[in-house]
Amino acid sequence: MPTHPTKELDSFPNPNPERDYTIEIVSPEFTCVCPMTGQPDFAEITLRYVPDQTCVELKSLKLYYWSYRDEGAFHEAVTNQILDDIVRATAPREAEVIGKFNVRGGLYTTVTATYRAPDRDGA
Amino acid sequence: MPTHPTKELDSFPNPNPERDYTIEIVSPEFTCVCPMTGQPDFAEITLRYVPDQTCVELKSLKLYYWSYRDEGAFHEAVTNQILDDIVRATAPREAEVIGKFNVRGGLYTTVTATYRAPDRDGA
Amino acid sequence: MPTHPTKELDSFPNPNPERDYTIEIVSPEFTCVCPMTGQPDFAEITLRYVPDQTCVELKSLKLYYWSYRDEGAFHEAVTNQILDDIVRATAPREAEVIGKFNVRGGLYTTVTATYRAPDRDGA
Amino acid sequence: MPTHPTKELDSFPNPNPERDYTIEIVSPEFTCVCPMTGQPDFAEITLRYVPDQTCVELKSLKLYYWSYRDEGAFHEAVTNQILDDIVRATAPREAEVIGKFNVRGGLYTTVTATYRAPDRDGA
Amino acid sequence: MPTHPTKELDSFPNPNPERDYTIEIVSPEFTCVCPMTGQPDFAEITLRYVPDQTCVELKSLKLYYWSYRDEGAFHEAVTNQILDDIVRATAPREAEVIGKFNVRGGLYTTVTATYRAPDRDGA
Amino acid sequence: MPTHPTKELDSFPNPNPERDYTIEIVSPEFTCVCPMTGQPDFAEITLRYVPDQTCVELKSLKLYYWSYRDEGAFHEAVTNQILDDIVRATAPREAEVIGKFNVRGGLYTTVTATYRAPDRDGA
Amino acid sequence: MPTHPTKELDSFPNPNPERDYTIEIVSPEFTCVCPMTGQPDFAEITLRYVPDQTCVELKSLKLYYWSYRDEGAFHEAVTNQILDDIVRATAPREAEVIGKFNVRGGLYTTVTATYRAPDRDGA
Amino acid sequence: MPTHPTKELDSFPNPNPERDYTIEIVSPEFTCVCPMTGQPDFAEITLRYVPDQTCVELKSLKLYYWSYRDEGAFHEAVTNQILDDIVRATAPREAEVIGKFNVRGGLYTTVTATYRAPDRDGA
Amino acid sequence: MPTHPTKELDSFPNPNPERDYTIEIVSPEFTCVCPMTGQPDFAEITLRYVPDQTCVELKSLKLYYWSYRDEGAFHEAVTNQILDDIVRATAPREAEVIGKFNVRGGLYTTVTATYRAPDRDGA
Amino acid sequence: MPTHPTKELDSFPNPNPERDYTIEIVSPEFTCVCPMTGQPDFAEITLRYVPDQTCVELKSLKLYYWSYRDEGAFHEAVTNQILDDIVRATAPREAEVIGKFNVRGGLYTTVTATYRAPDRDGA
Repeated sequence: MPTHPTKELDSFPNPNPERDYTIEIVSPEFTCVCPMTGQPDFAEITLRYVPDQTCVELKSLKLYYWSYRDEGAFHEAVTNQILDDIVRATAPREAEVIGKFNVRGGLYTTVTATYRAPDRDGA
Repeated sequence: MPTHPTKELDSFPNPNPERDYTIEIVSPEFTCVCPMTGQPDFAEITLRYVPDQTCVELKSLKLYYWSYRDEGAFHEAVTNQILDDIVRATAPREAEVIGKFNVRGGLYTTVTATYRAPDRDGA
Repeated sequence: MPTHPTKELDSFPNPNPERDYTIEIVSPEFTCVCPMTGQPDFAEITLRYVPDQTCVELKSLKLYYWSYRDEGAFHEAVTNQILDDIVRATAPREAEVIGKFNVRGGLYTTVTATYRAPDRDGA
Repeated sequence: MPTHPTKELDSFPNPNPERDYTIEIVSPEFTCVCPMTGQPDFAEITLRYVPDQTCVELKSLKLYYWSYRDEGAFHEAVTNQILDDIVRATAPREAEVIGKFNVRGGLYTTVTATYRAPDRDGA
Repeated sequence: MPTHPTKELDSFPNPNPERDYTIEIVSPEFTCVCPMTGQPDFAEITLRYVPDQTCVELKSLKLYYWSYRDEGAFHEAVTNQILDDIVRATAPREAEVIGKFNVRGGLYTTVTATYRAPDRDGA
Repeated sequence: MPTHPTKELDSFPNPNPERDYTIEIVSPEFTCVCPMTGQPDFAEITLRYVPDQTCVELKSLKLYYWSYRDEGAFHEAVTNQILDDIVRATAPREAEVIGKFNVRGGLYTTVTATYRAPDRDGA
Repeated sequence: MPTHPTKELDSFPNPNPERDYTIEIVSPEFTCVCPMTGQPDFAEITLRYVPDQTCVELKSLKLYYWSYRDEGAFHEAVTNQILDDIVRATAPREAEVIGKFNVRGGLYTTVTATYRAPDRDGA
Repeated sequence: MPTHPTKELDSFPNPNPERDYTIEIVSPEFTCVCPMTGQPDFAEITLRYVPDQTCVELKSLKLYYWSYRDEGAFHEAVTNQILDDIVRATAPREAEVIGKFNVRGGLYTTVTATYRAPDRDGA
Repeated sequence: MPTHPTKELDSFPNPNPERDYTIEIVSPEFTCVCPMTGQPDFAEITLRYVPDQTCVELKSLKLYYWSYRDEGAFHEAVTNQILDDIVRATAPREAEVIGKFNVRGGLYTTVTATYRAPDRDGA
Repeated sequence: MPTHPTKELDSFPNPNPERDYTIEIVSPEFTCVCPMTGQPDFAEITLRYVPDQTCVELKSLKLYYWSYRDEGAFHEAVTNQILDDIVRATAPREAEVIGKFNVRGGLYTTVTATYRAPDRDGA
């Protein structure tokens, strides 16, 4: 059952769009490449969102994270990029992505980016 | 003393309806079947609610969770379904159901659904 | 130095009534009897309150908890009962009782009841 | 389904007497009475044994522990007493009882008693 | 990709039979049925073994554990049964199975069974 | 370098009075005497404050806590007393003292007292 | 690849200035010198900020922390100094520095300083 | 019920001298005075012993530890002293004292002293 | 400073060959590819060894682990392979490699392989 | 009270040379310089020893650790060097030094060196 990394994020219809509720998906197995040194970087990515009409399909999310394996990616940019891609693919009511990167040079970096749909109060 | 799984949720009169208070019941032993692969899924279900005129009877809640053992259930749908059934059976002032599902494909999923009675402020 | 369980809750004058402050007392040694099966139940009881003119005397609180040892008590009712008795005995500005009951039938139940004096804002 | 505390320890035939193996049963809900002060004492009792021809029946063990609820018992004596009763009731190849008593006077006491059948090497 | 529970345990050739080494596989998702009450039981099963000519195939181990889902099984018997089946299927040099069962009636039970091949010293 | 316990609390000029910021000092080594029994009591004292023109000097704070070693002190009174002394000595914008006392009679007591300068909003 | 400590803090353009998001960098390897005794002090420094047009460059931040290695520094002053330097170098929308200093004389000190740009609401 | 510190260690007859078993008593509330600086020192003292004809009486052990409150005591000497006093008072088959002292000058010191009666094998 | 993955393991002369001592190096950032599915696998690799004439050079060990990033590798084989490569490169007196692989299909696998030089007693 | 780093290790007479006992001293505040890059390294050093005629004086041990602050030191060499210096200064019956170095390049290194006096059995 070989599958391939992909930037495509699949979705399925939200079974309960009449209600605001939260889905959190934690992936401790994110790896990409440092654009400066070409060496591997590792992170735990947390996605937390309130779906509107569609939910993120889990298997495609896994393949999407996999697609970063050979790409160069800065901590700040990649966390925001994931959030942008989730928003584009599923148009959630709210979404948050937290990239908790492994220690480098004695420093532990965590980037947190948040989105609220334009019609949500507080946006 | 054999008993049987059931979708029926029993209740008993709230002994203190004059006061808002919270009941939390955590069940680490929830299991159902993945509708895609037919394989078992496992979760910890947390129910937290403010009772109005009735409280959920514990033994029936256990049998209710048991009733999912052989059913196919998606993470998002089953968490919302449990909340709907609790609301229908006991008409609480507020209720929340958290389904914390075991890791699948390296991803840890938690679904949180919340209900507030129409006459509660903030609803 | 044998002493006896009692429903009497003693108090002493609040040494600092001019200030709102919080006293929290955690008792991991609460036990009563299940009214359904007659078998022992165990819980950790947390009392948290803002005293007004009097404070709960610790030794009498211990004897008060002891008084439940041979009594039948439902989770929801006993937590509210303790709160009521504290309020009656010491007339606090605010009080909260949390009953964290030991697992029964694979379910972990926690009941939280809160009181605010009628003249407190937010009450 | 009311049941009653009892000093009787039931057993059932060991399903695998051809092999040495270990059964550990932890009970965090042991309570007795301090013979000096008459006040309740609490402990976590761990039983660990290698069965010979019979195993301890779980429900009877629970009722057996319950039987101490109203008895006076010193830490050292009660731990040894439980070990003696287990040995008498099931004649295990090896057995160990650990009584981890709740703090009293700022002191945390743990008593550990061990038994080996006379024909075991090392006994 | 639906698959089915099975009692068949597949194996593959040990890639390093020239050396004693240890493989540990922990499964927190074991469930069976209590033969007394017909109600679900839950456990974490740890398998630890030194392979000889063959290793346990992971996917078949998962399906094997799944096969207990609808079977009645006592704690002591099922832990020994798993060990026997592993020994029969892969003839390891050493093997250990630890069944850590969820709390029932306030009691936490863990069963540990160990096997050494007849020609191992210490056996 | 022998030093002596003292009720005197020294201070030094706040190096950054232009900004609200928080200083937290945790002392796990507080001991006094129970006024009822004459026996030693132990606590962990947490001081958290927003300095105005002066900060608490650390060494004098240590000697101040030491000064309670031979004094009788009730849990509620001593926590409020420490807060009063800090306020008098350094006139902070906000301050909080948390006394977390060691278990006595199976009860764990924590007292939390808070101060806000009269000209702070919320005071 | 020898490098040198420096007070210079480099920055790079914020890749996502259109959105408020948070960057947290924890350094458990901060050391300076106590100005009173000349002895080494150790701390964990947490920087948390919302970037505006520029982000702090990680390597320069490491060299910046290194620059304190031989400098005398009081707990309160150095935490505020780091915040001031971050604000000057990168003009963030919000920033917070937490200095968690190792125990000295039995006391654990944590200093937390916060900045909000003048045009942020809440500032 | 005021009591007084004392160097006297009381004992009571071992209820089970026919068996080797272990009694462990942990006291997190030991304090003495540093002989160099006169300042308070704090430690957690663990006593673990196999009684012969007598057991240490708990209340007298508490008063014994209390007796160090105003005494100067070096880490190494006091741990050995406690062991000597236990041996003298109760003539145990084996005994161990562990003094885990609070951090001083950034150093965490633990002293462990062990005794075996002359007629024990291994002594 | 781009570098490249390599199978070459560098070493440097053991500074203290006159003494047996242990070096442990934990790498939580090992990733390879599952030979069955082509999907990424993740593991934490622990290397523990007693050096003889040479020690493993840290940077080359990092590049060596990196070299598995695009290779197919079974859990059992890769753990033994790393041990073999370490032994070939540095001829240690003793060595152990522990591969703790991330959960797959609900199963947590850990492989432990050990080496002792032929002239070591116990080998 | 300024003091200075020094390679001198002071000792004092062992108060209980008639008995084997263990002294453990943990220092989480060790820092030196990487000889390759000139950058700071950090470690937690644990010293555990059985004294013979003398014990290590704590304050001098602190100053001794301090003496490495500006020195270049490889992980393996410095751990062995500390052990050698302790042995030379105090001639213990047994000694062990554990250097647990902070993560570098994603690798966590721990070095453990042990000494036994020539006349100890097992040496």
